[in-house]
Amino acid sequence: MPTSQVSSEQILFTRGVPAMEALPNTLLSECVQAVLAGPDGKTVLQYGHNGGYLPLRRMLAEQYDVPPDQVLVGNGSLHLQDLFSALTIQPGDVVLTEQPSYDRAIKTFRRRGARVIGIPLEHDGINIAELEKALAKQTPSFLYVIPDFQNPGGVTMSGAKRQALADLADRYGFWLVEDVPYRTLRYSGESLPLLRDLNPARTITVSSYSKLISPGLRVGYLIGPLDLVKRLTSLAEDTILAPVLLVQAAVLEFHKKGYFTSNLESLKQLYAPRLQATISALKTHMSDISFAEPEGGFFVSVTLPEQSNYHNLLSRAKDAGLVLTDGTAFFADPLNENEDVKSLGERFVRLPFCALTPEQIEEGVKRLAQLVER
Amino acid sequence: MPTSQVSSEQILFTRGVPAMEALPNTLLSECVQAVLAGPDGKTVLQYGHNGGYLPLRRMLAEQYDVPPDQVLVGNGSLHLQDLFSALTIQPGDVVLTEQPSYDRAIKTFRRRGARVIGIPLEHDGINIAELEKALAKQTPSFLYVIPDFQNPGGVTMSGAKRQALADLADRYGFWLVEDVPYRTLRYSGESLPLLRDLNPARTITVSSYSKLISPGLRVGYLIGPLDLVKRLTSLAEDTILAPVLLVQAAVLEFHKKGYFTSNLESLKQLYAPRLQATISALKTHMSDISFAEPEGGFFVSVTLPEQSNYHNLLSRAKDAGLVLTDGTAFFADPLNENEDVKSLGERFVRLPFCALTPEQIEEGVKRLAQLVER
Repeated sequence: MPTSQVSSEQILFTRGVPAMEALPNTLLSECVQAVLAGPDGKTVLQYGHNGGYLPLRRMLAEQYDVPPDQVLVGNGSLHLQDLFSALTIQPGDVVLTEQPSYDRAIKTFRRRGARVIGIPLEHDGINIAELEKALAKQTPSFLYVIPDFQNPGGVTMSGAKRQALADLADRYGFWLVEDVPYRTLRYSGESLPLLRDLNPARTITVSSYSKLISPGLRVGYLIGPLDLVKRLTSLAEDTILAPVLLVQAAVLEFHKKGYFTSNLESLKQLYAPRLQATISALKTHMSDISFAEPEGGFFVSVTLPEQSNYHNLLSRAKDAGLVLTDGTAFFADPLNENEDVKSLGERFVRLPFCALTPEQIEEGVKRLAQLVER
Repeated sequence: MPTSQVSSEQILFTRGVPAMEALPNTLLSECVQAVLAGPDGKTVLQYGHNGGYLPLRRMLAEQYDVPPDQVLVGNGSLHLQDLFSALTIQPGDVVLTEQPSYDRAIKTFRRRGARVIGIPLEHDGINIAELEKALAKQTPSFLYVIPDFQNPGGVTMSGAKRQALADLADRYGFWLVEDVPYRTLRYSGESLPLLRDLNPARTITVSSYSKLISPGLRVGYLIGPLDLVKRLTSLAEDTILAPVLLVQAAVLEFHKKGYFTSNLESLKQLYAPRLQATISALKTHMSDISFAEPEGGFFVSVTLPEQSNYHNLLSRAKDAGLVLTDGTAFFADPLNENEDVKSLGERFVRLPFCALTPEQIEEGVKRLAQLVER
């Protein structure tokens, strides 16, 4: 795309959505056909499989090395988190999150009656000392974290911090909810253990195919201790009867045909240069700002210095053809009451890069830099 | 099927499920292919359309003569009822239902904090005098009814009773929730007006494609006043982001290709003789019992006389190769405290006939008759 065109168009640094060109509609069509013509072609159209399409649960069970009864597949992971919250949050309970964290998760926990408190996120994950302070005050129902390529921060939790969480969950007695939808989208470096690997008895692992195949399919899953998954499955049945089985069977077929692996490779090839473009643009145009350099996922984020011109940023950005997400939505209640979360939120800018071309990213970051300059 | 084979097999008079042979897997495969190869082939795989696939909402809006903003399409109607309950029920509120009513609906309203009170169902619908008694005591959040071919009763509400409900909703100020998934499956007689036709401002219409195309697709919808649908759509977005769009687009395609009409005709041709077989078998083997003769839908039901041998019926039936649903699950709290709802429930037998052959139905009713004989 010629620069002249990019320089006049609106640039959307808003939701963390896959690139449209990365959505495998032709391959999925083939998979749906195979399912509907196959031995389960009528089964997936009938009532049943309330915990999700059993053969897909079996595949995930193998992948995570648990029995299939510990896997619940639903219509997207947000819905499973909502059900989990319904079971585990009593009105007035505290839920801890990283600060900032996924806005819809914070909202979900609040709607189910929790007081959601954010623990500062550093470039290597949650601040453990601050977390311990919070735990000393009150045991939460659970701690919700996104250990890999965090949304919105983009940071990955260090191995030492993962171990610390695993230990603290035992010491204080609370659930660790690890939300790992981006984990497989690693463009460089090596994977660190899941919290599940370190403390399976205390860990609820939540993930989905939204970033790896398609968000519209709404195929998310949850892995946890047997008793909890049983109760969740029963609540899911009472609420939705069963998830949409046809798309779950199509996802399994996508794996079986080898498309998952090749599609993942294509996604990495498409997204890695976009991440690099984001990092380069930030280093070029906002060289005074330190930020965590992600090795995967969908997001880079920056916290603007206090002395920058961040006031009324969203509306000024829009006028300049740059659409940003309201940073304050990612912030829960502060642990220390005197902390100015509002100002932190106003200075927080999330940059989802996957659905933008390198040219758009360069232009978008340039516009941002101009807007916040004093 | 030879009688000898039927007489030895287990007969499942349990859930109201479509016949497996009626599930149109081949036609749906064609529809999904058309969607994924068409102009919205990538759109349905992306985030968006939080209130449901907009072109399907538009079609339903036309069908029900409302603007598309008054239509919300979700993952099955039970989920929409759960969301509606979340918005309208405050803990301790009363919700009224027909007695008996759909067990999962009763459970959903209770889980959202309602006291659910059942108003006796007669052969022409809810008992209006008893309903007025209940309304005089306390205004409910809503009255939930299944006016056409009721689940589990099989009865259809008369025109006069529909008008009475429309009037009472205005006089006392409560929502009418009409659940009409069976309405289109009329095998004889003429349709009566929807409650929506009589009092649109007070009516929430809920329906789905589970009985008309496939339950596994989980495509249900809700039609209501604009402000309420807006709030429901926002709650739906917070809970599930969006429903599964691909199956909703496939349903629209199913309509566009003319398959909906031809499939409905096939369903009626398959199910009408099964309804007739149920009615005949009851008249032959249980001639002393009066029951409502449905003109459509999935269910015939009988209430066994007090003097019949109904004790421990479920387990005795199972031993005799007849699987029945627990009748007590269909009964909410009684309006009059001295009413023996438990005994009523134990004597209530629902007979879902669609997934059984006429031979299986004849044999099943014969077994039932023998079991309850004194």
